[in-house]
Amino acid sequence: MAKDFRPKARVAKGFRDVGPEEIRGLRSMMATIQQVYESYGFEPVEQPFIEYTEVLGKFLPDQDRPNAGVFSFQDDDEQWLSLRYDLTAPLARYVAENNQGQLPTPYRSYRQGWVFRNEKPGPGRYRQFMQFDADTVGTSSIAADAEVCMMAADTMKALGMQKGQYVVKVSNRKILDGMLEALGVQGSDQKLTILRAIDKLDKLNVDGVRLLLGAGRKDVSGDFTKGAGLNEDAIDSILDLIRAPKVVHKAASGEDISTEEVDVLVRFSKTPFMVNQTFAEGFGELRAMNEIFADCNYDESRILIDPSVVRGLEYYTGPVFECELLMETKDEDGKPVRFGSVGGGGRYDDLVARFTGAKVPATGFSIGVSRLYSALKLVGKAQGSNVLAPVVVLVMDKERQADYWRMVTDLRKAGVRAEMYMGTAGMKAQMKYADKRGAPLVIIQGGDEKARGEVQIKDLRLGSELAASIETREEYASQRLAQFTVAEADLVSAVKKALA
Amino acid sequence: MAKDFRPKARVAKGFRDVGPEEIRGLRSMMATIQQVYESYGFEPVEQPFIEYTEVLGKFLPDQDRPNAGVFSFQDDDEQWLSLRYDLTAPLARYVAENNQGQLPTPYRSYRQGWVFRNEKPGPGRYRQFMQFDADTVGTSSIAADAEVCMMAADTMKALGMQKGQYVVKVSNRKILDGMLEALGVQGSDQKLTILRAIDKLDKLNVDGVRLLLGAGRKDVSGDFTKGAGLNEDAIDSILDLIRAPKVVHKAASGEDISTEEVDVLVRFSKTPFMVNQTFAEGFGELRAMNEIFADCNYDESRILIDPSVVRGLEYYTGPVFECELLMETKDEDGKPVRFGSVGGGGRYDDLVARFTGAKVPATGFSIGVSRLYSALKLVGKAQGSNVLAPVVVLVMDKERQADYWRMVTDLRKAGVRAEMYMGTAGMKAQMKYADKRGAPLVIIQGGDEKARGEVQIKDLRLGSELAASIETREEYASQRLAQFTVAEADLVSAVKKALA
Repeated sequence: MAKDFRPKARVAKGFRDVGPEEIRGLRSMMATIQQVYESYGFEPVEQPFIEYTEVLGKFLPDQDRPNAGVFSFQDDDEQWLSLRYDLTAPLARYVAENNQGQLPTPYRSYRQGWVFRNEKPGPGRYRQFMQFDADTVGTSSIAADAEVCMMAADTMKALGMQKGQYVVKVSNRKILDGMLEALGVQGSDQKLTILRAIDKLDKLNVDGVRLLLGAGRKDVSGDFTKGAGLNEDAIDSILDLIRAPKVVHKAASGEDISTEEVDVLVRFSKTPFMVNQTFAEGFGELRAMNEIFADCNYDESRILIDPSVVRGLEYYTGPVFECELLMETKDEDGKPVRFGSVGGGGRYDDLVARFTGAKVPATGFSIGVSRLYSALKLVGKAQGSNVLAPVVVLVMDKERQADYWRMVTDLRKAGVRAEMYMGTAGMKAQMKYADKRGAPLVIIQGGDEKARGEVQIKDLRLGSELAASIETREEYASQRLAQFTVAEADLVSAVKKALA
Repeated sequence: MAKDFRPKARVAKGFRDVGPEEIRGLRSMMATIQQVYESYGFEPVEQPFIEYTEVLGKFLPDQDRPNAGVFSFQDDDEQWLSLRYDLTAPLARYVAENNQGQLPTPYRSYRQGWVFRNEKPGPGRYRQFMQFDADTVGTSSIAADAEVCMMAADTMKALGMQKGQYVVKVSNRKILDGMLEALGVQGSDQKLTILRAIDKLDKLNVDGVRLLLGAGRKDVSGDFTKGAGLNEDAIDSILDLIRAPKVVHKAASGEDISTEEVDVLVRFSKTPFMVNQTFAEGFGELRAMNEIFADCNYDESRILIDPSVVRGLEYYTGPVFECELLMETKDEDGKPVRFGSVGGGGRYDDLVARFTGAKVPATGFSIGVSRLYSALKLVGKAQGSNVLAPVVVLVMDKERQADYWRMVTDLRKAGVRAEMYMGTAGMKAQMKYADKRGAPLVIIQGGDEKARGEVQIKDLRLGSELAASIETREEYASQRLAQFTVAEADLVSAVKKALA
């Protein structure tokens, strides 16, 4: 770069700057999550942002391009390094590296941090985002899975979400695997088509999913999606499976269920998949988890067994969970939709074994921090705008800066955010600055006030409130008196009173 | 990578994992820093970890290798991206990108975050570390520089550092530049040799620096360092300059000063550098800052003018500061040394102009978070080990998990960290687990206790304390009673009492 080269000042594509309100909001949100996780006995641990590429492995959806989705670079010694794309792969490395008794078994831990995806950015989709994970490593007990789900539900509650605004949905990978085995599905394309169809139940309802499991479906725009080509019996069995828990829940809540829904239950009680051992195992695990939820009084409005939950990541081996928010928001086209997933997870019994060969069972839950924060804003539970802007002390006389310094120091000591105007501009520019800062109060002491041992306090909030309701010029002049004068010695108490 | 390839589980070279105590300690330390910065009216803002390489520019010490010290990689569209190596360059980009009135002027902000250096790692030197910065952009007033210094001193105090344990040293780049101009030094090698010599005053004292400014110096190992080759008059003038404030400070503290030190002051009052305009300007700025420190009652034990401060970064244009910790620690060879710098900064009036051409004056201060945390640990002021490990409820009867779940839930609701044992192991392994976790208490309810409506509480801390003072086997048997039994209904209150 030549000496007089002028780079363009622009944030890199797919990245963004974060401002005060969001930073404070995230800080408060994460403190609450921490508090819940700590109360459950989870301990913080953090891995670095950079790992050997081979350590991270390839668990992102796009499996075809080598290292697709990951930012990678070569070290001086030619080894490939990558920026972490999630917090699970580094944790697996950490546990495998420290498995000589350094960690308790089982090992419960949590961590929060930025992760990076080398993907095409889109609206609201960034290449750097934050996750907040909790994991229990070293036990195959489904009590650990159940605990993580209950902790997720408690976290939503602690953040201010009401009953009915969130639900943790639970399924089991073995249910789907066993079902596909029982159906004799072998090709990975057909498998994928079936799982994708099931995943769309919320969006397309039973009829839409039926088409996608069968011949295919034409959407409103006329686009045709080829189906999985299953026969009607197979389709019925799948739909019964994924619908049955919801019907049970509906009935249990005292709602009427239709004859068709009764048929779902009857047929499901004789589900043809139970002959498959994997399915039966997954089914048993789900039932056991459900018992724990009942024992611990987590009703189905908070944690719900739902076999339609399909989590994308290949590495899940047992229970999978998804935390969904149920309140409405708008989609890209402005249509009302459910807010949707803010986190999920599941059991990944093979991730540590990648390194050591020895099986180290594990389960965990990951929160998408930005999405959850958006959700909290939507329901008015985001903290962050509750920090008052500072009181600004104007510099009326450059020779008397010592006086102004003293004022801000006294205010700070009393716990009031305060700043002395820092530039070299005149009174008008200083007022404009205070206004831009959102300062609640401005402190003014010119030569006259000083001579009388007084300071002037101007309430900018009051001023602008009054300004909004002012109709005549005379009124305006009189209302400019949203200011008052106090003795120098009373400055701190007067400011505290005005802010209270 | 083949399916059965086993990557080695190892953290990448120059990176490290961070455990619970340090995470909690940093969290608490950073909350305190935030609180001080917020009280001064600074607002949080964060830039992403990745920027266009040309945006970051090259301001690291090693200027010869292109992009030395930086992790860089090419984006899909061939543009070069880099991981940030500090928090100042991204802030300069942010301000230049948002200079159409979006930000108040002056703009005070703070940010904390990890930065990355692609350098050879060494003991205690990592390639990922955290900085905590505060900056005031948009004013050339030295009041802004003074404020940042006072804020740094207040931060040390808020963190629990005592007077005499820290000092913020202040100098001005123009002093050194003007001095070099006045001496007629032009070659950048000689310049560097002189600055390096001045920088060593603390380590080598006056005599060592004198040699380095002159012909050269042989150290104890016999290694010879070539000097700057200045004549005696020039050397005296430089030494007078960097020693004078310390002599003044010594005299002001009521300590005796030697005849030689009096001479330093006399000669300095006629310093030959003052004819240089740059020097005179820097000198005037230092004097004005010193007045502010006096006005605001920051005495010289907290903020000290010290012309021997040489900050490495090329981009400083005026005042420079360094926060030093004065308590003793050991160096790599085990010799006692002062702890040294935990942060620093200065005025950088040209960084934003890089982008826009328009001058946007700025000043800032950056804390090296890890070093500061080590210092707090050294003086016993680090928080982080004050979180109690959870109470562990043992699973004595797998059929009665519901009972144990209820116990942990009740304890958590009462604000006690608690966990149910999560594995499938027997009583002995569970006790070992609780011990490894550092659990203060273990809760036990077998069939007998259940039948009597009781629970047993075992105090592991008490147990190990007593164990340390036990001499006979009989005594041991009796002391094993660091446990007691309470009614089920009294579990929570008994636990809270035992932990209090």
